[in-house]
Amino acid sequence: MSLIAEVAWVNGVGAVEGLGAALARRFAKGGYKVAVSGRSPDKLKAVVESIQAQDGDAVALPADAGNEADILAAIKAVRELGQLKVAIFNVGNSVSSPSLELSAGLFEQTWRASTLGGFLFAREATRALLENGGGTLLFTGATASLRGKPPFAAFAAAKAGLRSLSQSFAREFGPQNVHVAHVVIDGGINGERLRSHAPQRLEQLGAEGALQLEDIAEAYWYLHTQPRSAWTQELDLRPFKESF
Amino acid sequence: MSLIAEVAWVNGVGAVEGLGAALARRFAKGGYKVAVSGRSPDKLKAVVESIQAQDGDAVALPADAGNEADILAAIKAVRELGQLKVAIFNVGNSVSSPSLELSAGLFEQTWRASTLGGFLFAREATRALLENGGGTLLFTGATASLRGKPPFAAFAAAKAGLRSLSQSFAREFGPQNVHVAHVVIDGGINGERLRSHAPQRLEQLGAEGALQLEDIAEAYWYLHTQPRSAWTQELDLRPFKESF
Amino acid sequence: MSLIAEVAWVNGVGAVEGLGAALARRFAKGGYKVAVSGRSPDKLKAVVESIQAQDGDAVALPADAGNEADILAAIKAVRELGQLKVAIFNVGNSVSSPSLELSAGLFEQTWRASTLGGFLFAREATRALLENGGGTLLFTGATASLRGKPPFAAFAAAKAGLRSLSQSFAREFGPQNVHVAHVVIDGGINGERLRSHAPQRLEQLGAEGALQLEDIAEAYWYLHTQPRSAWTQELDLRPFKESF
Amino acid sequence: MSLIAEVAWVNGVGAVEGLGAALARRFAKGGYKVAVSGRSPDKLKAVVESIQAQDGDAVALPADAGNEADILAAIKAVRELGQLKVAIFNVGNSVSSPSLELSAGLFEQTWRASTLGGFLFAREATRALLENGGGTLLFTGATASLRGKPPFAAFAAAKAGLRSLSQSFAREFGPQNVHVAHVVIDGGINGERLRSHAPQRLEQLGAEGALQLEDIAEAYWYLHTQPRSAWTQELDLRPFKESF
Repeated sequence: MSLIAEVAWVNGVGAVEGLGAALARRFAKGGYKVAVSGRSPDKLKAVVESIQAQDGDAVALPADAGNEADILAAIKAVRELGQLKVAIFNVGNSVSSPSLELSAGLFEQTWRASTLGGFLFAREATRALLENGGGTLLFTGATASLRGKPPFAAFAAAKAGLRSLSQSFAREFGPQNVHVAHVVIDGGINGERLRSHAPQRLEQLGAEGALQLEDIAEAYWYLHTQPRSAWTQELDLRPFKESF
Repeated sequence: MSLIAEVAWVNGVGAVEGLGAALARRFAKGGYKVAVSGRSPDKLKAVVESIQAQDGDAVALPADAGNEADILAAIKAVRELGQLKVAIFNVGNSVSSPSLELSAGLFEQTWRASTLGGFLFAREATRALLENGGGTLLFTGATASLRGKPPFAAFAAAKAGLRSLSQSFAREFGPQNVHVAHVVIDGGINGERLRSHAPQRLEQLGAEGALQLEDIAEAYWYLHTQPRSAWTQELDLRPFKESF
Repeated sequence: MSLIAEVAWVNGVGAVEGLGAALARRFAKGGYKVAVSGRSPDKLKAVVESIQAQDGDAVALPADAGNEADILAAIKAVRELGQLKVAIFNVGNSVSSPSLELSAGLFEQTWRASTLGGFLFAREATRALLENGGGTLLFTGATASLRGKPPFAAFAAAKAGLRSLSQSFAREFGPQNVHVAHVVIDGGINGERLRSHAPQRLEQLGAEGALQLEDIAEAYWYLHTQPRSAWTQELDLRPFKESF
Repeated sequence: MSLIAEVAWVNGVGAVEGLGAALARRFAKGGYKVAVSGRSPDKLKAVVESIQAQDGDAVALPADAGNEADILAAIKAVRELGQLKVAIFNVGNSVSSPSLELSAGLFEQTWRASTLGGFLFAREATRALLENGGGTLLFTGATASLRGKPPFAAFAAAKAGLRSLSQSFAREFGPQNVHVAHVVIDGGINGERLRSHAPQRLEQLGAEGALQLEDIAEAYWYLHTQPRSAWTQELDLRPFKESF
């Protein structure tokens, strides 16, 4: 073990029973000091405590993904925690609306969180990863990343932009030892959001008909551990029952 | 001929020897009253005059694609010209930069013109097209629309978002008789930009090694004339010599 | 007009009210001497007569697409008719079966017609087109060309192979002035097959809810007429109502 | 441990220093009795001995992938070894030729090994997997699986067909607990083939500039171990330096 901590930074952390928190837990379990970012200090605090309760090392760095000042402050704090080795961008809630009723404001807000946020995170994380000799940069995508479909015009456009970014960064920084990958999550996630908003849908899907948080997190961990002779740029994940 | 003019609106019109102007000329030749939008009133004026010189009917509607007030003013003016039947979004200059040197401002500006602009245009044009029983909505894409590659991270992300939008609108409004299509232009265009900035590249490519403006415009016209039993959603265009 | 006839060769011609026949009619109308190939001499005869009845010039060249000797005989006959300028491969009926009940024989037969047949046709046609300074080579694809889905495992694999071939030929022979394009037909065709086997489906779809033969044929004609500064490699066609 | 052995069947095994052998070693190390198939009994014998030398359990089942009788004999032998749990189709050597010089025989042979072979293997393996309550079915793909490019017209068409098959099987049998995935290997493999035919290319690529056999094999193992709430259908693998 080195005296300087190795850090994993996860942006897009909310509820303890959400994907961001599950990712943080997985990398804490893997020995990383985990920095968790998101908009709600209260939620981050709960996530940090849940990780600490399992003897993990975690720090809350509240930040609004689309706000450059926040991200610059967060990366500064990340650098002080140790050497950044893993950076995961998990921001972006689905927004739905008939396209003709979509306001410019909502369209912008969706982009600001998912795409601009992804860029700011990627730029700052990559700088730190390069200083540390390389590392892993992962992005959470969705079915909408691959195709535009109503009523998700705003969300799909933002996610398509994020996916494109992941490709540009992969091609630009792969040869410098930064592993950039994009995870396409295709299906309902058995997490806080569905549990509170659509419990009946979860029940219909059945135990493994929705993506389990830990199972998704394991895929991110796998990507991180790939040796650089055989890196994956894009990985899809879906429940065995999901039609596609 | 109806007493009410049928209108084609082209957004993203600049130099007389650019693609926007060529598209406007083609639809003027096809009998439409053409409304041309772009940021430079002087350039629009020159395009309008060049169309009028060929007995075409054209009107300049200066507008900044990413500015909602401008677009709302422009569509208001379009409605006063007659019945909107064709709307073409041709905005978006390629921006290049190493990703770590890309500012949030430039990233946003690129999105604002290409993606937000595309959405505002599509939303307002679609409303008018639906009122008129349907019509055609076309988007100009590029190789970068399909994949992210340095040094085009910002441009590619914006174009990927626009392409996704074209799909969402196609799926949402096709059944209501609005034909939405995306044109992927893959190769150098023999227009004002290359002629002034990279004349030697044009020379290397040779006469038909670069895309001719009129040939591209003809493809947009073709898409517009497709009967609705057989609509195309995406069309690629490249010179015969282009490797891909 | 030259004294030597310009020839269009369409392989995959069956019923007068099928796509192959409609393609032949369109190119006959465009001034080409049309050679029609297919397995049924009787059907070809009816197609030839229907074209001649409209003052078109057509010749039947019976051939089994997957049989090399037949294709070699046909191209020999084509060469004697004049200069080959257009070649269209339209072979391939959809085959459906649960994958575990699919015999090796049916899997092979499907490939032999659609993929091997496509290769033999493309190779022989390209040789002739190159001798004549270039021309157009078009392939009929389907939704299944883009993705495998039960119960179409055999058909989709064969069509995916054909689409790949169209790309290889486009990249190899485009620079030599052969325009190679692939048409993805996505939706039911209002032709002999649906009319006799699923008239109720056609009725549900309504007049323009199924692809009209003439409308599809017009798209092939358009591809043929594209100037080489702006060629399309892949074109999708679907009815305005079709969900995708 | 059950008294009945759990079996992994790998088809497309040749040299000890090839990918097929590496896959067999990985699954033997994971506790499976491994059945290795390929055309050369001598090579299979060497692979089996190398696995046994590491205390692994392996059996040679010589078979020509495109020969149905061989595959039926092999699956019969597999069933006698125990319960099939994993099946990997790794057949398919790249074939290159200018398209106009490609014989129907070579085109067919390429398809027979890669596509028909893939279907026969998938059909027989899936039957056995379903009897055992499910399992994993993996296919080796290549860059050519995704796009056709000269001089690989035959190989690309065959691989595109195989990829389509993997999708059909995934959609058909996923809900029955068979995990079907396709691995796109994009880059040179540091194995027997490159070592003997292009050692200078390997040297240029450097240690991790070519895909290491063990690293590829680990990705297949990972796919096999994914829980069914989060299955991957397609995974790309490329060296960090590879441009794409």
